[in-house]
Amino acid sequence: MYFYMPTKVFCEKNCVMNHKEELCGLGSKAFIITGRHSSKKNGSLQDVRTALEEMGVPYLVFDEIEENPSVETVMKARQTGLDAGADFVIGIGGGSPLDAAKAIALMMKHPGENGEFLYRKGSDEAYPVAAVPTTCGTGSEATPWAILTRHELRIKGSISHKIFPALALSDPGYLRSAPSSVLVSTSVDAMGHCIESYINTNATDYTRMLCEKSLSLWSKGKEVLLGKREAEEEDLQNMMNASTLAGMAISHTGTSLPHGLSYYLTYEEGVPHGRAVGIFQAPYMAAADEAVRGQVLDKMDFQDMDEFKHFMDELLGRIEIPAHIQERAVREMLQNHAKLVNCPYPVDEVVLKNFF
Amino acid sequence: MYFYMPTKVFCEKNCVMNHKEELCGLGSKAFIITGRHSSKKNGSLQDVRTALEEMGVPYLVFDEIEENPSVETVMKARQTGLDAGADFVIGIGGGSPLDAAKAIALMMKHPGENGEFLYRKGSDEAYPVAAVPTTCGTGSEATPWAILTRHELRIKGSISHKIFPALALSDPGYLRSAPSSVLVSTSVDAMGHCIESYINTNATDYTRMLCEKSLSLWSKGKEVLLGKREAEEEDLQNMMNASTLAGMAISHTGTSLPHGLSYYLTYEEGVPHGRAVGIFQAPYMAAADEAVRGQVLDKMDFQDMDEFKHFMDELLGRIEIPAHIQERAVREMLQNHAKLVNCPYPVDEVVLKNFF
Repeated sequence: MYFYMPTKVFCEKNCVMNHKEELCGLGSKAFIITGRHSSKKNGSLQDVRTALEEMGVPYLVFDEIEENPSVETVMKARQTGLDAGADFVIGIGGGSPLDAAKAIALMMKHPGENGEFLYRKGSDEAYPVAAVPTTCGTGSEATPWAILTRHELRIKGSISHKIFPALALSDPGYLRSAPSSVLVSTSVDAMGHCIESYINTNATDYTRMLCEKSLSLWSKGKEVLLGKREAEEEDLQNMMNASTLAGMAISHTGTSLPHGLSYYLTYEEGVPHGRAVGIFQAPYMAAADEAVRGQVLDKMDFQDMDEFKHFMDELLGRIEIPAHIQERAVREMLQNHAKLVNCPYPVDEVVLKNFF
Repeated sequence: MYFYMPTKVFCEKNCVMNHKEELCGLGSKAFIITGRHSSKKNGSLQDVRTALEEMGVPYLVFDEIEENPSVETVMKARQTGLDAGADFVIGIGGGSPLDAAKAIALMMKHPGENGEFLYRKGSDEAYPVAAVPTTCGTGSEATPWAILTRHELRIKGSISHKIFPALALSDPGYLRSAPSSVLVSTSVDAMGHCIESYINTNATDYTRMLCEKSLSLWSKGKEVLLGKREAEEEDLQNMMNASTLAGMAISHTGTSLPHGLSYYLTYEEGVPHGRAVGIFQAPYMAAADEAVRGQVLDKMDFQDMDEFKHFMDELLGRIEIPAHIQERAVREMLQNHAKLVNCPYPVDEVVLKNFF
């Protein structure tokens, strides 16, 4: 049994400003990694700028991280950061900028390596990373994973290096301006992390503890996700914590079949990550041990699989997946040792075809 | 809301040997800190010796840590470690050697300071510490606390510095040779950590998660503690994990009145720490919010306070506390800001007298 979670996590309103000293303790020049829009809209980028300015720490902003960031973008940002002489990295946004920030921090520490280094074993040393999540799904602020798009393989996959952020500053207030579709997609991603971590060969009392608390916080927001009531502050805090706890869980167990299959839908069809992950949760649970499945349903506050499926259908709708993508996903998943080995039940072509 | 737990924890059979590379990665010469007897009897000292020898790492053993170790012992050990040129510290045993190891690692890093530095604010830098617990109560392997005896004040108290072990290697097998009185006392300490952390002004979803899982693991061993059945391997694993999780909880919240009061019993009357902490749990709970108390009882699998009190009486028996010690404990506790501020209900002399 193993527990390792070195990231210092603060989850509270105004936490970027409240913990600007910890943030600025990471280095002497910051390299801010974010996307084009949302971090400007929700105030997170301005908070980080203000915190750095008040502490007199110079910084540079790279705001070109696309959804599902590519190795190419990481390499471009690395050069920009090195040219500027930055010595720590702050990722702001959803999973894309956070994951990119880790990969950039790794590559900056290894300036002699090219992009292939990301997917090769080697030193995990990286510049310190701070993560400022503005969605409630990725959990990237508390994982060592960094999922990038590999265009040459036409798929997404985590880099081979483990980079934990030194610091996570999670302000639930940043969720306030997120479109409901983003809240839904990312919350479903967090829920999926828990289900895949709970039903997992690597699950322990520690990781199940994290999933249980995450799912019970998550379950309090189900009506918010369905649009049946407005989100209170407490809901946003619960969603943020559920996401971070789920990240801590998958840091130990990894994810399994739903995440592995989802990447094909996202890469080929542009289905948002959380939605792509979500549609595979019911079949993943259906094939699992009944007692374990019951525990998961109980923590999510669903009576049975029917109620869960009904909820997910209402939340996500149906997704049509072209036959050739299904076939490729099944074929390649049967070769995906990393995801298969995490699944506690036998997986063959028949099992996987049932996922679609 | 805050979560920080940088210690890498392994809890499994043979984990010292299984993780000897991580252990030896902490430095080039080890300073082993332990007591006179139990680590020889339960095999932990030999495991650590073997691990270091197989990895070719030289070491020195200091086995003079007494129960409730004193500042004087820490200072003596510091000199021995410095003279030997050790650069990391391995604590083996119950809370006493583990806490001492942290204080020694701190003082070795600050060779110019005298013992007063322990109780003065200042740099928390210390040599890396590995903790090998052989009891299931302290949780010290996953806390930054180091409780030492301060003879000049006739009391125990945590040093002013926060030293997390870098590595915790918890082999439940070491509990096998512990006398049942030690299992009882230390398990009650772990339970007390959870109760005082759960009923605490600093409690959060994160810390309550840790307490809930700890208490539910702890509750599975109640009949073992009462001597009604033999401990299975799973029981020992549960007790060890319960203790570590409780340590993680108090790392964030601190302890409260029962711990503060217990130190007088231990210092003046020699009552073992867990037993001294245990007798104050029922009154601490009785004065707390009913709903919160109910959650704690539920996780421990007790129907109500009567059942809990009955269990504790059966486990610990009655302890006679001389009137002058009661009076001193009440008087000084009313000045103990650190413990009072953690208690979520108002505390005055009447409340405290009810604890006895």
